[in-house]
Amino acid sequence: MSLRRFLVDPAALGGPVVVLPPEEAVHARRVLRLAPGDPVELLDGSGRRAAATIEQIDRRRVTCRVQEVSRPDRPRPRLVLCLGLLKNPAMDLAVVKLTELMAAAVHPFTSTRTVAKSRDQGKSARWDRLAGQALKQCGATYRPHFSEPAPLARVLASAPAEAARLLLYEEHRGQTLAQALRAAGDPDEVWVVVGPEGGLAPEEVDQAAKAGFSVCRLPGATLRAETAAIAAAALVRFGGMGE
Amino acid sequence: MSLRRFLVDPAALGGPVVVLPPEEAVHARRVLRLAPGDPVELLDGSGRRAAATIEQIDRRRVTCRVQEVSRPDRPRPRLVLCLGLLKNPAMDLAVVKLTELMAAAVHPFTSTRTVAKSRDQGKSARWDRLAGQALKQCGATYRPHFSEPAPLARVLASAPAEAARLLLYEEHRGQTLAQALRAAGDPDEVWVVVGPEGGLAPEEVDQAAKAGFSVCRLPGATLRAETAAIAAAALVRFGGMGE
Repeated sequence: MSLRRFLVDPAALGGPVVVLPPEEAVHARRVLRLAPGDPVELLDGSGRRAAATIEQIDRRRVTCRVQEVSRPDRPRPRLVLCLGLLKNPAMDLAVVKLTELMAAAVHPFTSTRTVAKSRDQGKSARWDRLAGQALKQCGATYRPHFSEPAPLARVLASAPAEAARLLLYEEHRGQTLAQALRAAGDPDEVWVVVGPEGGLAPEEVDQAAKAGFSVCRLPGATLRAETAAIAAAALVRFGGMGE
Repeated sequence: MSLRRFLVDPAALGGPVVVLPPEEAVHARRVLRLAPGDPVELLDGSGRRAAATIEQIDRRRVTCRVQEVSRPDRPRPRLVLCLGLLKNPAMDLAVVKLTELMAAAVHPFTSTRTVAKSRDQGKSARWDRLAGQALKQCGATYRPHFSEPAPLARVLASAPAEAARLLLYEEHRGQTLAQALRAAGDPDEVWVVVGPEGGLAPEEVDQAAKAGFSVCRLPGATLRAETAAIAAAALVRFGGMGE
């Protein structure tokens, strides 16, 4: 049986007693049927994790007494995924899996071949919620920052020059992502651009190359966009950079 | 617009004219509304891909004329994923993504902490169907072999001694998967064992180690089982083995 985890406001984790937010309180009481003394874990999504026990649990509120707060190191390198806005369920899947894989930020972008609707506002609030659920399931402590979809050019321009900046392009015949990561050495931050369902247009790839992004590929595969993003994140996170 | 792909029987790809299976024929006619002369791609799931055009399309049957048959190389190393049987939707997600990542075989296993129901027969037929749909979406040519769930010990015993044999264990404090893959050199075949939702029991890990599996870990992460399997497959496939 896995530990019961709850997501709380970062400000709430300061004192010895934490009041669970209303949704979490309902879940603790009605679904999990917790009782005073039951051990729980509190996550604030900003890096802190608290070992706690249920103190009071009733219809009005659920409070937890904090035993110990820790802050696991933020994984290095900092991973920033620039992902062409995808239709669901692909986008939601990418959000959840990139959260598990501890991306620091996800910048969805629109480009000439974007097919997902990009006009609705409030997408990032939905992704925040999904990522919060993912944190509770997997126990990771940092929730990625999700920005609202923006045009590709604006996302490219926001990458710092000192970051390793890579772009996956399925038509590329040169270096692989693994080679590009090895060539990058041991950077503090890695940006990876992955196009939408229909791919990036050749002129968008040129534009990114001019902006300082190295073009690379995942050899021998035709992956769906969300799978390419997940595979790239796995390589950055677990491929042995800096080992 | 992506190319229309259909899955056909390997035996059917021998001659110049291929009759689409009933389900594919309905899809071609009613959903895609294809017409004679429309270009299509035929996959047999066993490595062959044919460029073809619709020849005849009516209520009785849909035939395609084959222009050219190719067989892309099977990716090296051959990847065999031994995955603790998972509850859905996690299991279905793993099946689809491992197909995209070109696993050669997936051997689901039952172990002391298995929570998914393992008694239903015919699971592998469902996975075959899902994998077939994944092939059509991503254009990969090899469908993994899915075996029916079997006890862990039997799956471990079926691994050939010459394969690189690895096991992911979240409690392990030694080598990482990236290090284990580098130490393996350039094997023809890599087996990776990933436990079910509740993980492997310590005695099962010992049992695997005695059977010749090297224990390793994905550093700094608590991943859901299906995500660990996908991340491991991405590392084997794209991590630069043998480059």
